[in-house]
Amino acid sequence: MSTGEKESPMTTVVPDYQHKTKEHPVAIMNPKAEAGAKDRLILGWLWKLMGQPAIRLALWDGWEVGAEDGTAVERLVFHDRRALWKVAFNPELQFGEMYTKGRLHVEGDLVHLLEKIYRSMARVYSPTGWLSLLERFRFYRPNSLERARGNIHHHYDIGNDFYRLWLDPEMLYTCAYFPREFTDLEEAQIAKMDHVARKLWLKPGERVVEAGCGWGSLALHLARKYGVFVEAYNISHEQLVHARERARQAGMECRVRYIEADYREIQGRFDVFVSVGMLEHVGVRHYDELSQVIDRCLTPEGRGLIHSIGRDQPGNLNAWIRKRIFPGAQPPSLSEMSRIFEPRGLSVLDVENIRLHYAKTLDYWLQKYDRAESQVQAMFDADFVRAWRLYLAGSVAAFRMGSLQLFQVVFARSGCNAIPWTREHLYRG
Amino acid sequence: MSTGEKESPMTTVVPDYQHKTKEHPVAIMNPKAEAGAKDRLILGWLWKLMGQPAIRLALWDGWEVGAEDGTAVERLVFHDRRALWKVAFNPELQFGEMYTKGRLHVEGDLVHLLEKIYRSMARVYSPTGWLSLLERFRFYRPNSLERARGNIHHHYDIGNDFYRLWLDPEMLYTCAYFPREFTDLEEAQIAKMDHVARKLWLKPGERVVEAGCGWGSLALHLARKYGVFVEAYNISHEQLVHARERARQAGMECRVRYIEADYREIQGRFDVFVSVGMLEHVGVRHYDELSQVIDRCLTPEGRGLIHSIGRDQPGNLNAWIRKRIFPGAQPPSLSEMSRIFEPRGLSVLDVENIRLHYAKTLDYWLQKYDRAESQVQAMFDADFVRAWRLYLAGSVAAFRMGSLQLFQVVFARSGCNAIPWTREHLYRG
Repeated sequence: MSTGEKESPMTTVVPDYQHKTKEHPVAIMNPKAEAGAKDRLILGWLWKLMGQPAIRLALWDGWEVGAEDGTAVERLVFHDRRALWKVAFNPELQFGEMYTKGRLHVEGDLVHLLEKIYRSMARVYSPTGWLSLLERFRFYRPNSLERARGNIHHHYDIGNDFYRLWLDPEMLYTCAYFPREFTDLEEAQIAKMDHVARKLWLKPGERVVEAGCGWGSLALHLARKYGVFVEAYNISHEQLVHARERARQAGMECRVRYIEADYREIQGRFDVFVSVGMLEHVGVRHYDELSQVIDRCLTPEGRGLIHSIGRDQPGNLNAWIRKRIFPGAQPPSLSEMSRIFEPRGLSVLDVENIRLHYAKTLDYWLQKYDRAESQVQAMFDADFVRAWRLYLAGSVAAFRMGSLQLFQVVFARSGCNAIPWTREHLYRG
Repeated sequence: MSTGEKESPMTTVVPDYQHKTKEHPVAIMNPKAEAGAKDRLILGWLWKLMGQPAIRLALWDGWEVGAEDGTAVERLVFHDRRALWKVAFNPELQFGEMYTKGRLHVEGDLVHLLEKIYRSMARVYSPTGWLSLLERFRFYRPNSLERARGNIHHHYDIGNDFYRLWLDPEMLYTCAYFPREFTDLEEAQIAKMDHVARKLWLKPGERVVEAGCGWGSLALHLARKYGVFVEAYNISHEQLVHARERARQAGMECRVRYIEADYREIQGRFDVFVSVGMLEHVGVRHYDELSQVIDRCLTPEGRGLIHSIGRDQPGNLNAWIRKRIFPGAQPPSLSEMSRIFEPRGLSVLDVENIRLHYAKTLDYWLQKYDRAESQVQAMFDADFVRAWRLYLAGSVAAFRMGSLQLFQVVFARSGCNAIPWTREHLYRG
């Protein structure tokens, strides 16, 4: 069944507006145009579908449903019938699409509204229901070498200047680690790199390979502060240009090599394998390839760390995020991550879940992003501004309510006894 | 093909000895009785089957094979042909059987010999080969309520006086935690209880349920030091008698209740679920029942800790250990443990692998056990003494070379934000 005004005999929208809808969807908003009984039914049904969160939903003519008890300070307003029906029939994808196009808007805090919806939906829907399983198989597309490049280009090559507007000065686009509540983002990103380095008990002169190095900060930090040699792989060209320039300026080209290649193309033997924020883009069905790479490149006393967005149960990212923001991305559950370690005798030494640190990191990003709104709009357009705001706000909400996790997993070869006695060294000084 | 002298035309053993074999196997040992060519072939083949570890293997007549390079300070001596052939045809089970019966003995350090064999076998055999898979399905018997009681009775009800000989004064029969290298066993067992308590961030007055409480020390320690109320479940009658007496003497009966029942019979709602050293006895196919129990008994802000022997890959305990020492036991891999958490929206916050701490704990036990040998022999017999020595020594070797792991997993309900910000509090003071 397709949606749209044409099929609704109950339409009360003036034909002029209908015509405009096709060309300039935003223009249809008219608070005075009365909605029909079907629209009201759909709105009420949508609120129930969401699990009756403590928010209000409103139509373009001001008609409302939602929580009545005064806890609903956020309001979701639909601007036109077509937007309402699209969201009703495919909420996972169309909520994002309609928000991006400005055909619905949120009054009050966007993060709070999303968190309320996520939490109420989690109460209503089982994460292991057959629908979620079906969905899992339907949407996933394998990351071949070529498609992986396309997927990564889609997100990471949209301009270093854009990311510079709202990331920290080191350009770390992964979860920070806040040792204290009052640590700021810049300190927390450096603390994250040190947390990772300590977990890997690096020794000067060791050889480190980094899979998915972003703008190169971790590789540079490890080489400078811990005296190791790093080969850092990435398939985002724009990021590597920036990374190489920084290494050159720091006079560290002798210790850090940035290589434009896929993790599957890693060559050589290393004491340490590290990957921060790449696994999400690998896809579960490619974990055996990753496992082979790690097995091939690690020395007998080698160890590694994988830092990745994850989930408490197998499942997919929101459909809109996968379509518009992160094509090919798939955050794994721990049992899925085990497919990297178990088949090749890698022993998991330590798993830390720092989900709330990612909520805080994203909150910092969102605040900086909102302050840079006019600059983003000048670079792209209003749709882009809204899409990325929704992505950042939705991510804050997802980490806060636990639909996403952040796992740091430390591993070594099975039976290797050159491992730290306790984890106390992570928290010294 | 069955084994034994009767079927070997090459036998050189005097018929008198053959007759004695059936009644008193040990009596057959006669260093002067010459072994045949087949025995020598078998011995050489056995060494190759083991992956050619740096040990020597010897027959009853003094004939030897093994490492030639001087690294072989340990020697494994077979006392009779039947023992040799039994071990050759079913090494996993019969090595333990023959050692127990004194029909083979080890010169040099038993732990070192076992560790060398395990390590060389791990090099030769893939942990995921079809044989290991076959073996997995063949030997496992589900732990019904009744059989679980039988299995636990087999190991834990053989006498508190026996365990008192070689455990610490608190009678903790699980992996200790050694914050420093020089911590002794008694301190390390208390440190383990505090490590567990900190991981659970207990608050005075909270309600704790313990599944599988052993001789009751952890429950008593948590109640006394952390001011919580504990209901502790166990199906070993002997252990509970001891536990209740201790609680009575400590005047803590108002805060600790010991209940003789299976974990599946846990009733009530609790802030904390804790289980130290029980999961090994549950069996992977019962994890869904355990998961249900946890889900049923935890409050919305509840959290839990499971401390268990584990493995880097799915697999079974050594066949002899399962037959003679721990019937029904099955240490899980992390992917197998995930079956407890993932289906019911439990979020894993922290996994720590303290395998080397268990090797050290077992080393302490083995030393005390060896010092108490004459007392153990007076309680049981020489076969029992040898069987338990092999079990303890084999366990030291298994944890040291990584065929066994020790996982502590902390979890909370998905999306619960009343969790510690970092793990630093575990290492304070």
